[in-house]
Amino acid sequence: MKLAPEIEAKVRASFSGQTLMTTLGAEIQTLAPGACSVAAPILPGARQQHGAGHAGLTFALGDSAAGYAALTLFKPEDEIMTVEMKINLLAPAIGDRLIAEGRVVRPGRRLTVVQSEVFAETASGRKLVALMLGTMIPTG
Amino acid sequence: MKLAPEIEAKVRASFSGQTLMTTLGAEIQTLAPGACSVAAPILPGARQQHGAGHAGLTFALGDSAAGYAALTLFKPEDEIMTVEMKINLLAPAIGDRLIAEGRVVRPGRRLTVVQSEVFAETASGRKLVALMLGTMIPTG
Amino acid sequence: MKLAPEIEAKVRASFSGQTLMTTLGAEIQTLAPGACSVAAPILPGARQQHGAGHAGLTFALGDSAAGYAALTLFKPEDEIMTVEMKINLLAPAIGDRLIAEGRVVRPGRRLTVVQSEVFAETASGRKLVALMLGTMIPTG
Amino acid sequence: MKLAPEIEAKVRASFSGQTLMTTLGAEIQTLAPGACSVAAPILPGARQQHGAGHAGLTFALGDSAAGYAALTLFKPEDEIMTVEMKINLLAPAIGDRLIAEGRVVRPGRRLTVVQSEVFAETASGRKLVALMLGTMIPTG
Repeated sequence: MKLAPEIEAKVRASFSGQTLMTTLGAEIQTLAPGACSVAAPILPGARQQHGAGHAGLTFALGDSAAGYAALTLFKPEDEIMTVEMKINLLAPAIGDRLIAEGRVVRPGRRLTVVQSEVFAETASGRKLVALMLGTMIPTG
Repeated sequence: MKLAPEIEAKVRASFSGQTLMTTLGAEIQTLAPGACSVAAPILPGARQQHGAGHAGLTFALGDSAAGYAALTLFKPEDEIMTVEMKINLLAPAIGDRLIAEGRVVRPGRRLTVVQSEVFAETASGRKLVALMLGTMIPTG
Repeated sequence: MKLAPEIEAKVRASFSGQTLMTTLGAEIQTLAPGACSVAAPILPGARQQHGAGHAGLTFALGDSAAGYAALTLFKPEDEIMTVEMKINLLAPAIGDRLIAEGRVVRPGRRLTVVQSEVFAETASGRKLVALMLGTMIPTG
Repeated sequence: MKLAPEIEAKVRASFSGQTLMTTLGAEIQTLAPGACSVAAPILPGARQQHGAGHAGLTFALGDSAAGYAALTLFKPEDEIMTVEMKINLLAPAIGDRLIAEGRVVRPGRRLTVVQSEVFAETASGRKLVALMLGTMIPTG
């Protein structure tokens, strides 16, 4: 299914307004109804003490991917925010870039349940580094 | 209780090695056995689409505070990493700076359970913006 | 602060209607605005394979204590339900009985954030066996 | 892939030893390496105040399914326990029975990450009522 152009425009404008995404070098890769993937390099300024991506980087990408996955299912005038999010870190974030795949598990007028998988990509493939499960709420 | 100087030195060196903390302007405020607070301004480059601090900023500060709270209880040669962390976002991160107060709830040789409270500070006081509950594991 | 009698009556009637609480032998210990404690023996039929209380028992008591802590802050005609809940299990549930202390961290018209601590009580004292952090929502 | 007979025997014996599962009328439905499903009726004694299954019932089934999914990947002499578990409740647990499908997302010598989906089954089909994401650890 294709996303309506005004929804896609809204999501991209909102993402562009998240300065943390710009700081982290993050970009939207794909958008579809109920799904959004966000990719970013592991910049020199986004690391933990051993040079892997910081858990805060992984979380930020996964949270944004999940939030915009949810936003695709709302009306153009709606906005959403994260109520809560849990992350399980499965492996160090080492690779050329991280890709967060967010998707809606259960849409709702009041609450939307979302998941994200975050992968570290290298020349030889993708490795799952984090799983996230959370809740989004419309605001305003 | 005071922290042993070699532990304090180790924690501060590790924190300095987290380039994401530098990017976010974060600094350790206080350190004690089982406790660590980390503060950061809400930099122009760390925001969501409405100008509040991004959930990724709040998470990163709370995760680091909790992790270093745990690290204070380990031997100088040990390191730790985050197994999992849940965050409940209670209010937008609006203010002059964010302060994450991490503490150990249950220390352990194998697993250490930690909490963080993240506050937004303004001229008129502190407001709780997030609660976090997670697990740390020694590595190596 | 004292709880209004009609709220206390509503909470106790609702609790009595939870047949799982009866099956587990659970009873409300204390009620105050934003706080509720629930206690239960570790019945022979509520155990895991080594004879300790099952995680499902610990969760059920902590979830009910947190939910009724939240319900004390709503109007008599309101009801609430659990949106999500995370539990960290800190020690086996071994003892004479379990006591779950639920409290509201952040009340809200739309969402209420709650915590529970679950203790195992023995002749020699109380031991913290679980920490819970979750979200309640009014229904209807 | 088929489960080794001694592992299957171990899992079934351990499950039989969980008296809470017996109290709830729960039975193992399927077992395979890294996967376990557990089903139970919504007994009159396992309900919340409106007659739906209690969140504690849903949690208990999902936790056991996830734990035994993990246990299938360990040696016959190993045991495991739940470190932490998060549950998002998506819909009331109403139906003829609940079925929890547990599976291992990331096996590990030290920690195993697991998921459970819990469905309510009626004559007309299955409805997802809860999603769970957690961590298991070998004991002993």
